[in-house]
Amino acid sequence: MSNSDRPTDLIDTLAVTPTSRRSFLKAASLGAVSVAGVGTMVACGKAGETGAAAVKQAGAVPAANAVTPAASAQATADAMDAMHEKGIKAFPAKTKGKGNQLLAPRVEKGVKIFDLTASVVQWEVEPGRLVEAWTYNGTIPAPQIRVREGDRVRINLKNDLPESTAIHFHGLELPNDQDGVPFITQPPIKPGQSYTYEFTVPNAGSHMYHSHHNATKQVGLGLLGGFIVEPKDTSHEPKVDQDYVMVLNDGAHGYTFNGKSFPATEPIVAKLGQKLRIRYMNEGMMIHPMHLHGMHQTVIAKDGWPLPYPYRCDTLNIAPGERYDVVVNCNNPGTWAFHCHILQHAESDHGMFGMVTALIVQK
Amino acid sequence: MSNSDRPTDLIDTLAVTPTSRRSFLKAASLGAVSVAGVGTMVACGKAGETGAAAVKQAGAVPAANAVTPAASAQATADAMDAMHEKGIKAFPAKTKGKGNQLLAPRVEKGVKIFDLTASVVQWEVEPGRLVEAWTYNGTIPAPQIRVREGDRVRINLKNDLPESTAIHFHGLELPNDQDGVPFITQPPIKPGQSYTYEFTVPNAGSHMYHSHHNATKQVGLGLLGGFIVEPKDTSHEPKVDQDYVMVLNDGAHGYTFNGKSFPATEPIVAKLGQKLRIRYMNEGMMIHPMHLHGMHQTVIAKDGWPLPYPYRCDTLNIAPGERYDVVVNCNNPGTWAFHCHILQHAESDHGMFGMVTALIVQK
Amino acid sequence: MSNSDRPTDLIDTLAVTPTSRRSFLKAASLGAVSVAGVGTMVACGKAGETGAAAVKQAGAVPAANAVTPAASAQATADAMDAMHEKGIKAFPAKTKGKGNQLLAPRVEKGVKIFDLTASVVQWEVEPGRLVEAWTYNGTIPAPQIRVREGDRVRINLKNDLPESTAIHFHGLELPNDQDGVPFITQPPIKPGQSYTYEFTVPNAGSHMYHSHHNATKQVGLGLLGGFIVEPKDTSHEPKVDQDYVMVLNDGAHGYTFNGKSFPATEPIVAKLGQKLRIRYMNEGMMIHPMHLHGMHQTVIAKDGWPLPYPYRCDTLNIAPGERYDVVVNCNNPGTWAFHCHILQHAESDHGMFGMVTALIVQK
Repeated sequence: MSNSDRPTDLIDTLAVTPTSRRSFLKAASLGAVSVAGVGTMVACGKAGETGAAAVKQAGAVPAANAVTPAASAQATADAMDAMHEKGIKAFPAKTKGKGNQLLAPRVEKGVKIFDLTASVVQWEVEPGRLVEAWTYNGTIPAPQIRVREGDRVRINLKNDLPESTAIHFHGLELPNDQDGVPFITQPPIKPGQSYTYEFTVPNAGSHMYHSHHNATKQVGLGLLGGFIVEPKDTSHEPKVDQDYVMVLNDGAHGYTFNGKSFPATEPIVAKLGQKLRIRYMNEGMMIHPMHLHGMHQTVIAKDGWPLPYPYRCDTLNIAPGERYDVVVNCNNPGTWAFHCHILQHAESDHGMFGMVTALIVQK
Repeated sequence: MSNSDRPTDLIDTLAVTPTSRRSFLKAASLGAVSVAGVGTMVACGKAGETGAAAVKQAGAVPAANAVTPAASAQATADAMDAMHEKGIKAFPAKTKGKGNQLLAPRVEKGVKIFDLTASVVQWEVEPGRLVEAWTYNGTIPAPQIRVREGDRVRINLKNDLPESTAIHFHGLELPNDQDGVPFITQPPIKPGQSYTYEFTVPNAGSHMYHSHHNATKQVGLGLLGGFIVEPKDTSHEPKVDQDYVMVLNDGAHGYTFNGKSFPATEPIVAKLGQKLRIRYMNEGMMIHPMHLHGMHQTVIAKDGWPLPYPYRCDTLNIAPGERYDVVVNCNNPGTWAFHCHILQHAESDHGMFGMVTALIVQK
Repeated sequence: MSNSDRPTDLIDTLAVTPTSRRSFLKAASLGAVSVAGVGTMVACGKAGETGAAAVKQAGAVPAANAVTPAASAQATADAMDAMHEKGIKAFPAKTKGKGNQLLAPRVEKGVKIFDLTASVVQWEVEPGRLVEAWTYNGTIPAPQIRVREGDRVRINLKNDLPESTAIHFHGLELPNDQDGVPFITQPPIKPGQSYTYEFTVPNAGSHMYHSHHNATKQVGLGLLGGFIVEPKDTSHEPKVDQDYVMVLNDGAHGYTFNGKSFPATEPIVAKLGQKLRIRYMNEGMMIHPMHLHGMHQTVIAKDGWPLPYPYRCDTLNIAPGERYDVVVNCNNPGTWAFHCHILQHAESDHGMFGMVTALIVQK
């Protein structure tokens, strides 16, 4: 099941107003409590008392007519917490534009045809933050291409960028002249020109397509997307209820999942007992060790190739250009933090940002 | 066997004065020589002769009344070597405070109770270098919690920090409301307040506990520790003589193993033929490829989950948030360098520093 | 088969003039076309028309007597493309000095003797860019040492550097006093002095030798090389036609493969159907996820140790100090880009540079 092919009730769940979103998160959290055991918050003293202890410890002498340092610390903590809360309550924040949506092909004489236009757009990474983005069909990530091993595929690229470009199909073992490397396998596609790639889809797996010309800039600005090849023989595929493509990036737009920064990242919503396949793709320049709370990840494939022996983890390190497929058995209800564990990519003293989302397991 | 549960004779070995420490290292080194084969140092010429050759090679003409460049190079080399030697001879340097020590629980009605206080202390990272540290119970890493799968555990946290906080049990598949993420699974624990976590210990393995509030700062300053869960069924556990938890960090305190920088890092001391389990935990923001000299490491678990097929290596790359369990068969006597192989984390022209320790295999 | 032991016809292929080099690359590319399927370049409009559209999109109004922005964009694209083309057409660019060449030992009484001199030289990283290099025998990487498990080996090191030094045989499980760590296993080798290492070669695999004194600087400047140990029992070795050692570095000399930056990197040339073994060695300070186009890599060993179950990938992340052995089945003809996928290590708006080479599969 693809990202855009989710059950309607899950989509409805996400299409909530800011207000109901709060209730929703609260409900998810409260829903877990009955399962969760004991978690008691105990205020162990009045702020003033604690404050006095703190002052003593620090050896400071508060001026008689000043706000006490303890009260000041409390106020500082409250102010920081308010910023943290604001970010989390805003999640999932609405922004304009959604990438990684399935691109339905035209079919002509048995050939699946995908039309792409590379152009510069304004992209809303998080609420109110608009950036210059270089995109295929106006979104980051580009529309998701999903085909089957052995399909005949034609990809028409129109270049409306101010630079030449080319598409490399990262991970696909194509004939050399379809590999998309200017001056090695093809001429660069000049501004205003179009170019056609056509091939029979080779090896199955989680692959990518992205620019291979001036790529540090062009991929960094957004010319990237998922290219999923389903195998002819599906007997070895895991049986899953959802199949989620998650593109990691850290370029000019900051730290993003599928082109958005927290709180505008997309939560993944599953029902208790469902199996979730995540296809990680690192299109950035840094590693991102992806940590899921509450449930482990079973790693089943590397760069689209099934692993001979899957292994389990909770933090999976993904380097630039790598893809990993994992399966999560959604057996633990609640709203679970899901983030890059390089903490500077995920949280500052202003709260969570960047590479943070949630896996919401609904009972 | 836990870190603090070492045979007394090994502890005695380490409790040496700076002077006897030198003899100790020397003895360890010399002890290996009889096993080691041939290693002959041959001075191939007097310094003056060599110096002349060096001058010739460089094409320089030394002034008649100046120190010759060759003699100068020799002096520079000697000065650098002296700094290198000084660091190594100081190892293991005494500092105040030792983290990662087993925390014995109180047991009430079958519940193992651990009391933690988060507070700001001064921490000695290496001799004379005191830093502000945010700690659980005053040490970095925090006291090591070691329990058994299925145990009922209660953790009381008193927050004496100037900020709110919360504990995330990284790797444990807990009920959602015990997961420790403010505003998602619980309210933040304000300065002066206390909070209680309680749960039945789920999945076995090498896990961690650390702050999940303003975590870039709070974990960076030291709110982190090992949380080891021994499995109910120990039949698949490796038989080892020592079980060592090694927390890697690279935050505000510099490059550290278990909260200390070389030469204040702790050597691991084993007897020839012993098996050593190391549980690496990366609480930092960077990768650390851990290189052991002299013996390989057999990787048996990732994030607490046994690998289906262990594999061998000498340099194991550990990313932030990851844990790896390895077993070392201590079959090669001597004092072996053991360090992060990002060389800037381990050596400068002033000598070794940061992420360096030694595995000492005694005959 | 070692790097310097390639079939003569391949060496001849590379020994081409700049002019014939261009034809060669073109031929390799064209050779693939008949296999490749359809790849049609279609100019979809005159530059002027496209330009008008671009202007409209940007909302700019070109001055009547100025060069139009569209024409200017075209000129900018052309200028950038020319720089890209120039780099690729220059590949493989001639430079002085070639590292990683097999060092034939002298044999005395059954001992294989290797003579090394550490000295400072000028090294040409790419055409015209000469850098100060600290080398063994004048090249980066150092001469490749290739011996057999159980061999008796003697290595004589003459230190002509302005600093003390020592050699660590990274990955070899040697007797402690041969491990090459000053003040732990031996005294530093002073400028002008010589030192002899001698040992019976232990564990097989892809290892390294490099300085372990002031190593951030000394290894960064080039004191490094491959140390390959062939196993006594070769029944488990993959049958390959070429065996290529590829040392990655990112020190003071920039991003290099075997001491050279693109376009001066060495292409790997194979015949269709050949099997290629690559031994990656990271002697740098950063990770390098190595991405091969057109064919996957089967990972067979980590740090010289065979993996219990090889796995496939197209992008292999290699951390400092790690080695990986992979096998590539060269079944896809053409010239294939082969590069680090941290794009800043491989391409700028001036074109490809640094960690880029090509695997050329000839029909």
